[in-house]
This record gives sequence, C-alpha cells and structure tokens, in this order.
Amino acid sequence: MTPAPLITLLTDFGTQDAYVGILKGVIAEICPEARVIDLTHEIAPQDLLAARFNLLNAHPYFPPGTIHVAVVDPGVGTARRGVAIQTAGSVLVGPDNGIFSGILTASPALAAVALARTEYWRTRLPSTTFHGRDIFAPVAAHLAQGISLAALGNPIEPQSLATLEIPPVVQSGQRVRGSVQYCDRFGNLITNLTPEHLPNGPWQAQLGEHILPSARTYSEVLPSQPLSLIGSHGWLEIAVNGGSAQQQLQASVGTCVWIEPAE
Amino acid sequence: MTPAPLITLLTDFGTQDAYVGILKGVIAEICPEARVIDLTHEIAPQDLLAARFNLLNAHPYFPPGTIHVAVVDPGVGTARRGVAIQTAGSVLVGPDNGIFSGILTASPALAAVALARTEYWRTRLPSTTFHGRDIFAPVAAHLAQGISLAALGNPIEPQSLATLEIPPVVQSGQRVRGSVQYCDRFGNLITNLTPEHLPNGPWQAQLGEHILPSARTYSEVLPSQPLSLIGSHGWLEIAVNGGSAQQQLQASVGTCVWIEPAE
Amino acid sequence: MTPAPLITLLTDFGTQDAYVGILKGVIAEICPEARVIDLTHEIAPQDLLAARFNLLNAHPYFPPGTIHVAVVDPGVGTARRGVAIQTAGSVLVGPDNGIFSGILTASPALAAVALARTEYWRTRLPSTTFHGRDIFAPVAAHLAQGISLAALGNPIEPQSLATLEIPPVVQSGQRVRGSVQYCDRFGNLITNLTPEHLPNGPWQAQLGEHILPSARTYSEVLPSQPLSLIGSHGWLEIAVNGGSAQQQLQASVGTCVWIEPAE
Repeated sequence: MTPAPLITLLTDFGTQDAYVGILKGVIAEICPEARVIDLTHEIAPQDLLAARFNLLNAHPYFPPGTIHVAVVDPGVGTARRGVAIQTAGSVLVGPDNGIFSGILTASPALAAVALARTEYWRTRLPSTTFHGRDIFAPVAAHLAQGISLAALGNPIEPQSLATLEIPPVVQSGQRVRGSVQYCDRFGNLITNLTPEHLPNGPWQAQLGEHILPSARTYSEVLPSQPLSLIGSHGWLEIAVNGGSAQQQLQASVGTCVWIEPAE
Repeated sequence: MTPAPLITLLTDFGTQDAYVGILKGVIAEICPEARVIDLTHEIAPQDLLAARFNLLNAHPYFPPGTIHVAVVDPGVGTARRGVAIQTAGSVLVGPDNGIFSGILTASPALAAVALARTEYWRTRLPSTTFHGRDIFAPVAAHLAQGISLAALGNPIEPQSLATLEIPPVVQSGQRVRGSVQYCDRFGNLITNLTPEHLPNGPWQAQLGEHILPSARTYSEVLPSQPLSLIGSHGWLEIAVNGGSAQQQLQASVGTCVWIEPAE
Repeated sequence: MTPAPLITLLTDFGTQDAYVGILKGVIAEICPEARVIDLTHEIAPQDLLAARFNLLNAHPYFPPGTIHVAVVDPGVGTARRGVAIQTAGSVLVGPDNGIFSGILTASPALAAVALARTEYWRTRLPSTTFHGRDIFAPVAAHLAQGISLAALGNPIEPQSLATLEIPPVVQSGQRVRGSVQYCDRFGNLITNLTPEHLPNGPWQAQLGEHILPSARTYSEVLPSQPLSLIGSHGWLEIAVNGGSAQQQLQASVGTCVWIEPAE
C-alpha cells in the first residue's frame, strides 16, 4: 500500500491563535488521508532567514515526495507570486520570496509554476492577508490528492525564483571569516561555516574577543565554558556546555565568527 | 472509503506539560483511527472570550462532521454541566460555559445533551479538576466511534445553553462604535465590526487619538504605520505594517474602535 | 484491523526550531503508518526531573504497546548508553539517564537492551549531539515496524538502568513532610505526597508560613485564595483558585510541604 501523502508546515503564525489548525482543517477537507507534520510555527514574524534555515536543515529528513508548505509572507496581498516548485525529492509550496532558496541550493528546482488556477484554491477571491489558508494549503492538499504541478498554474523559469542570500564566507590568509546564520532554542550559534572551511590540523574559533576551542561534544569542556563544534546538521556551531552561547557571548544572527589554526 | 473521523482540540492547557498529550492518548485508546488536530492550547488560562473567538473563526474550515472539543473550564468540579451539541456541520463537546456560543451564533444548535452516561467516560468517578481527560476526550472519541449524541446523556433545550456575549456594536449618527474582541500573535487588533457596519464610500477607523486609514493590505501603508482593514476572517482589524498594533497603539480586548466616513 | 502503532515524543527541544519535525520525518520514512503524539517538547533544557514527572503521569493514558521516546540528554556524545526497555504496557526508548525511572517505579522493566545494532539507526556514524534524530527516533520507528526489542542491541539487567530519585517523604509524629516535585503551566505545585500520606479525618497542608485548607475543587475557596487538593494524577497539589500558587507562594521544585491534621 502506498503510504499516505506527507505535507509539512512551516510558518510564523505562532500557536496562540487557531491559524495553524485552520490550515490543517483546509487540508483535511481536500485530502483527508494526508499526514501533516509541523516543522515549526515559531519563526519570528516575517523572519525569512530563519524560515530559510529551518527548511534547509529539515528537508533531508523527509521521505521522497514530501510536500513542504512554508508561509512567512511579508508581501502577502502584493504582486509577489505564489509558487510550487518540484525538486528531486520534494515539492515546495509558498510565496516566491526566497523562503525556499536554502533548499534549492542543496536540491535545485527541476520545474516551477506560478500559482494561478483558482479551482485549486479555497476560493476564487482569496483574502489579501491569509494566503496560507486560501491558496497554499489548498494547493498542497490538491498535490497530495494527485493533481500535477503543471496543472496549478503557469510554468516559470527556476532561475526567475526569488533568492535570499546569506553573507559569504571569506578566506583571509590562514583564517576564514563566516557569520552566525541562526540561533536555536538552546542558544547555540549556528554559523555558515562547514567542515570544508576548516584548516588541516587543530583549529579554534574566534567570536569577538572569545577564543573557542574545538570539541566533538559539549561535555568536552567544563560546564558553562564555550566551545565550537561541527553540529548535527554539518555547520560549525558555537555552544556553551549546559548554557546559552547566545546570551553568554552576546552574539546574534550576523555576528562574525573566525576559524583559525589552534594556538 | 469514509475518511477517519476528525477531532479538534482547543484548551488553555499550554504545551509545557503533558496534559494535551494525555487527551490524545485517551482518544487513541478509544478510537485509534480518529485524526486529531490542535486548534490551539495557548488560550490564556480561563480566557473564555479568546476560546470563543478562536472556535468561531476556525470552525468554518473543517469538514462536515468534525468533532470540536474545547476545554477552558474555570468551573470544573462545580455544578456546571458538560454538554455535547449537534450543529449543521459539527459536534461540540465541552463545558456548558458559553465557550461554544460564538459558533452557535453562526450555526445554531440542532440538539444538545447534558453528559451523564458514565460508560462513555474514562471512569465513573472522574477527577474534580481534569474533565478534559476524564469526560470530554472520551466522549468525543466515542462519538468518533459512532456512538450517537442522544446516547451520551439527557436531552436539553438548546436555549438553555450558557452564552457568552461580546459587547454590542452601536450606531451613532454617521459613526459606528465597536470594540476589540481579540489580539492575535502578530498584535493585530480584531474588532467585532464587520463589512456591514462600513459606511458607503471611503471610511477610516479611530482608536483613541489615532486615525487609521482603511487599506486592502498591510503594505499599502508605510512600514510601522497603522491601518485598518477587513481581515481574513471578515472582521475589521487594526494592524501595523510590519509591527504590533497592540503594542504601538496600547490597546487591548475591550478598547473602543470607531468607524466613520473618511475625512 | 490492528491499529497503527503509536509513538509518543517527549523532549527539551522546544518548538522554535524544526528539531521535532525532523524526528517525525525520520519516523515517517521508516514507518509511514506510525501515529505520533507529542507529550511535550517544552521541558526546560536538560531538566530530567520534569521529563521524568511528565512521563510518569502521562504513560497510564496510552494504549498497550505504545512506544515512548524521550530525549532530554545532557550526556549526549559521552559514554552514557542508549536503551530500549520493555514494560508490561509499553516500550521506552531514550538515553539511560533515569528519564524513565518514574514510569519504571510504576511499571517495572521486564527486559532492556543497550542500543548497539547500527542497522536500525539513521546512520552508522551518528552525530555526537543529536541522538534523537540519529538513534532514538529510528529505533522507535523500527520497533513500530515490528522489529523486536532483542534485535536492537545487547541485553542488559534492568537493575543496571540509571535511576533518578526524588526526595523521600518523611513521617514525623502526626505530620508528614514531602516536597514540590513539579510546577505546571497554571502554577500548580504538585508534590510527591499521595492520599496514603493523609491522616484520618480532616487535614491541611503547610508551605512556609502558609496554611492551605484541603478542598475537593479549586472553587471551594474564594478567588485568589490558596488551597490543597488531591490533583487529577493522584498527587497532593497546592493551587490558587484562579491564580498561580507558584508565584503567590514563591515556591518551586524542592520546596517543603507538610501535611497535618486540620486545626
């Protein structure tokens, strides 16, 4: 038996209101057998970079064919397009504002459409403020029901999709400069640096005036001591054993982090 | 194949404790095939008006036959009744404290029972403090299993159900006075005013000393500027483009809002 | 038809990041028909006592055969074992750090294995920081698929499992001293005292300088007044009618509570 189709949801709707429940009601009405998994709804309002980061990190852990719906949508009601995008492993549905550009660097778009066929929307006259409910959730549910991507609208060039860039990594002699791209709930500072940026031999990280020894696990340093390690998603991470690096080091998204050979 | 029955949950239990998970365990034991959707569990403790509002706004987006369980229950353990209510589109299960009175203004009760048949409860001697676990979740699961409403207890007159009124809208010459009935996670102020209260021609809203131009989308005003618009649920909403109207305008539930012809 | 297998999740991951969604993606890939229920993900980082308490209270409400995955794991990446434990009613999967020792006092381990068979992990080389994703979720999904406990690793003596003790209850003449073991979202103070510790006849509780009359329901005392009652899970609880005992009485986990005959 084919498993029921799988839809994930990522939004900045929070969980205080029934907005997320409404998305699931709309999906259940169109495709009752779809399974729905929440990635997170706690993206800070309109924080597209955090949305992009979480989608990038989560997508490899879902079965082929998963439909990812993402709604962080500062431009809702303006001329920004709604899109559906086919990649090798998944289908992406949401606003064309770069929210999927992390996934697309890892798994390029094979095809894309601008959503236009209103028969697959909840209503032909969607609200100007809640396209998650009126367009993106219904489109995802119809995809789960077996409607093809091509049926949903007009084909567009994958190259025309909006992108959201993160700051580049810069090599400077023996040192490499990256930056914090995300702070998680534990206060771990996740950078845009990866193992390929590490020097041969022992290394350390620097953030402001702090030197952060490299380690394999949090517990290799004393409690409350900071460290740097390659985290579970393959990014260089600055952490504090049993504490919050974000608070202790007074860092945030964009803060510079250097890697250098260990002293 | 008939889709599996659908149960929604709305509570003020929060998500810090396992209380919501326990409701789902109880449901899974009685009706393993039921699908459960969370509306929200972040209703402020005992805030019946917020519960009423979220149920009212969410219920139209669920398939016919959906069972809505709502547990915000300051009177738990007192003489207040537990009820199950049949409407045209759904079945409602919870305490008889007005929590469903928003839904019932939109979709009147066709039949109602006071819950009394303990064989459909988790135990004949329910706790005095957790009727969600001991009565409402089991009753909903039995309804999902096919037990009829009538089997659950004694029929009661729908007119006898507790109601929770919101302040009325008052016409005063060319102006109409309503009030904020809900603040959502974005800080949008959702009033009890609807399009039928708008004057012919251009209009604006007033809240305290603030004049709020009407708009179709948030982005029609400059960033950080307030506006009023008809929100996605059909209520007049006061919002701030990219910000929180609740904070910026220092408003809260009950704050007066006027609609008037635009200057 | 056999119901689909049931897996519960309890972690300290929070819901801001996609970590919990990733666990569900990993499970869905291995066992698409498994149903997943969240107990809570809001355990304070590394608060094993709160995890232990929520598991203990929630487990009786799940059907036989439920697989409980718990990941609060300060020792991740160290030599601490991962384990799977069979009890009469459920299977437990997580780190061997005492997180299950509440459940196990109520329902002893019948068999246990140290997780070692990497073919049931997501990868033979798991990360040093995210065993929930790489080991525990995959192992639970394989159990849900029908793999036997014995296949997952090496048998270990249940007596060798780590335990996490809570402070003892002490009898002292006519009085009994216990302590707060958990504070829930409502600010209720849940102690380690049970009905068997109560004296014959009327009783009251004492916390610091506060005398707390016993009651059956919150509403037996005036609004904002504190009381003590046997809560829905069978523990003596200190509460405030319509308020937070935690705030009002300035108490927290570990605070002493006395039971004594009523004055």
